[in-house]
Amino acid sequence: MTASRSSQTGLSERIQAVADGRLRVREVVEELIDCIESSNESVRAWSFIDKAAVLREADNQDRDIAAGRSPDKVLYGLVFAAKDNFDTCDMPTAYGSPIHSGSKPARDASCIATLRMAGALLMGKTVTTEFAHVYPGETANPINPEHTPGGSSSGSAAAVASGMVPFAFGTQTTGSVIRPAAYCGVVGFKPSYGDLNVAGVLPNAPSFDTVGTFTRSVQDLGLVHGVLLDLDPAPLQSVSVSGLKVGVCRMPWWNKAEDQARESLEIAVSTLQSAGASITDFDHTEIFEGLEEQSQIVSGFEFSRTLAHERRVAVDQLSSDLREGRMYSGLHTRHDQYVEAQKNLRAARDQIDDAFDQIDVAISLPAPGPAPHGLRRTGDAIFNMPWTTLHTPVISLPLFKAVNGLPMGLQLSAGRHSDRRLMSVAAAIGELFV
Amino acid sequence: MTASRSSQTGLSERIQAVADGRLRVREVVEELIDCIESSNESVRAWSFIDKAAVLREADNQDRDIAAGRSPDKVLYGLVFAAKDNFDTCDMPTAYGSPIHSGSKPARDASCIATLRMAGALLMGKTVTTEFAHVYPGETANPINPEHTPGGSSSGSAAAVASGMVPFAFGTQTTGSVIRPAAYCGVVGFKPSYGDLNVAGVLPNAPSFDTVGTFTRSVQDLGLVHGVLLDLDPAPLQSVSVSGLKVGVCRMPWWNKAEDQARESLEIAVSTLQSAGASITDFDHTEIFEGLEEQSQIVSGFEFSRTLAHERRVAVDQLSSDLREGRMYSGLHTRHDQYVEAQKNLRAARDQIDDAFDQIDVAISLPAPGPAPHGLRRTGDAIFNMPWTTLHTPVISLPLFKAVNGLPMGLQLSAGRHSDRRLMSVAAAIGELFV
Repeated sequence: MTASRSSQTGLSERIQAVADGRLRVREVVEELIDCIESSNESVRAWSFIDKAAVLREADNQDRDIAAGRSPDKVLYGLVFAAKDNFDTCDMPTAYGSPIHSGSKPARDASCIATLRMAGALLMGKTVTTEFAHVYPGETANPINPEHTPGGSSSGSAAAVASGMVPFAFGTQTTGSVIRPAAYCGVVGFKPSYGDLNVAGVLPNAPSFDTVGTFTRSVQDLGLVHGVLLDLDPAPLQSVSVSGLKVGVCRMPWWNKAEDQARESLEIAVSTLQSAGASITDFDHTEIFEGLEEQSQIVSGFEFSRTLAHERRVAVDQLSSDLREGRMYSGLHTRHDQYVEAQKNLRAARDQIDDAFDQIDVAISLPAPGPAPHGLRRTGDAIFNMPWTTLHTPVISLPLFKAVNGLPMGLQLSAGRHSDRRLMSVAAAIGELFV
Repeated sequence: MTASRSSQTGLSERIQAVADGRLRVREVVEELIDCIESSNESVRAWSFIDKAAVLREADNQDRDIAAGRSPDKVLYGLVFAAKDNFDTCDMPTAYGSPIHSGSKPARDASCIATLRMAGALLMGKTVTTEFAHVYPGETANPINPEHTPGGSSSGSAAAVASGMVPFAFGTQTTGSVIRPAAYCGVVGFKPSYGDLNVAGVLPNAPSFDTVGTFTRSVQDLGLVHGVLLDLDPAPLQSVSVSGLKVGVCRMPWWNKAEDQARESLEIAVSTLQSAGASITDFDHTEIFEGLEEQSQIVSGFEFSRTLAHERRVAVDQLSSDLREGRMYSGLHTRHDQYVEAQKNLRAARDQIDDAFDQIDVAISLPAPGPAPHGLRRTGDAIFNMPWTTLHTPVISLPLFKAVNGLPMGLQLSAGRHSDRRLMSVAAAIGELFV
């Protein structure tokens, strides 16, 4: 499997080529469809795709561009995918469940509509685990199809990793963007909680639900992120690693990681040190301890209620993973426990903000190791849980390779709402490993 | 216009009568439909109702009850309504906009499914303003149809006030439950932010969006609230007004209130004082000042993005109130302003929590006066904005009457997540005015 040429080129260059008339949107789409046709049989990234309709839309866009219409559409030439828990007005949305097979929402999710308004073209919907929880879809890891791509944003990670699209939306409630990004070898981004609008995305646990993204580079991420938030169009600021204050966060679950994963973090540390970064420990066990329990209380309480409709009309069509797992524990969580956990988490968020005031970036493992063998489980999200729970921005960079050839990543986090700065830092750190 | 007999009886008595076989669900429904047929021509509370289907469902429930099936359904006999920004799997959901006329969602909103699971029967969908913002629907105030019922939960407030249903869901992002409750003369409740699951409710500004309720009494509210949160079934605890610490909150907008509204608050103060309550001022201008600006920044930024789909496909079908109002200002709000406002609001919430530690309840005006004349505007939400923005629970009690005969309310608030205690306090205060 090789990545398609289109996805190897930076997004901004391709968008510029389309704007200049040197490249047609149809050519972009055709190249991606070629990649889909050669890769998707083994990867199975899509829950819905209508290639003919996408080509028609590309032709419409090419006509508009040739006629000089809509010069404000800054993303003509971007073709993207969205996880199938994003509502779409013109494609079915099944949330990874047979209960909703063929469902047709009336509206596009906010983030999809925003990109479409800017001229981006939606290629299709990607496979999600059941209701963005743990029961897997059919997607395989593009690097080795005997391994999981991770979840719950399985199809989005796999689609970008195999070059089928250069950008895809996912969602993260625990580790559903960062982990699959690391498993598939792409750049994963979970923004600060609340930055990207969640309207039209099926809620899982609303207190944690975050729209995230998959790209092949931090630059591509920065470009689309800027459009999503109407930022002044400017490339990411350049940052020097020399003098960067890096906190190493091994987390209380360090012993759950494979040796090769722990080694990868130590390699990152020594590489950063050699480049002049100042390294400190970022243990903060006072914040991290107990976080897993608080996170599960809130997730369970909310998730079990989010799915009240399915519990009422089709409980037997829910997986036992879901019914006997988080739903069961959520229905046995008392409201006062939920309230107490929320209060504790608010305090923990303020604490981590203070801790982040002392460093530029925290580095940690995005997963306990490379993608596990088999498609029945999507891997362990424990190393992602703290940042999601604490609402901080996170980027996973595809920097390492495991002994079996599968990718491993480096997880970067920073204080709430320092997302743009984190991207700049991530770009600089990524450069060290080229 | 008179309220129907059914709605005058306490909910728990009727539910007990249904459980005991002394009353059939069909009888409950027929009585409410009688009320709808006599009142709705002038009130116009419903955006969708299918009386024949509701009667069929009532018969099914009566058969189940007679056969002893589903004894765990603790809300057989409760007939309720939901604002038309709650998704329903078997009724159209139009969000108060012609853009979505006839739309059919795949799922029930979480709160609707939860009540249905408990045996409650959904009568229909009630009129909302356009996307739960300000452009009004056709509903009139049941006390005087030349006056607004308030909004955005116009139909829900009017339906409960006119006895068409004893319980209705609304939503509040600024003042969309408490204000119409006060205008229509019913009990309005906006819970602590996050307590009631918002899945399946169309987002407006997710940082403030709260599912709220309309009932004829605080006891009815306590009953349904307990089921929604799976609380141990227990009646509200009894509270004595004597010794109660009451903070009087006139707010920086005190001069926007009509004389008769300001008088009503002073009557509340003296009545509470006579009953042995200890009264203090709860001014906290350091918290309240600037809150309106922060609230508008966050609301605008989020609301304009929540409606990205409609901006893209049907912008000319949006009201100019919406396009030129909050949407325009939201699209001209920078992301860094939004982030700063969110940070300020988090700090303000911690401050108000501390302030509420000193008192049992804050009393304030739910609106600047009784419902304004005319149906073109739904009234001013300024007195509701602080509590919604600060995430605290609020109850409006229908305690007063304006010179023109329209109701006026008393707004009660307390610290975050003291909702049950606030209900007990509200019940005790309400008793003083019987």
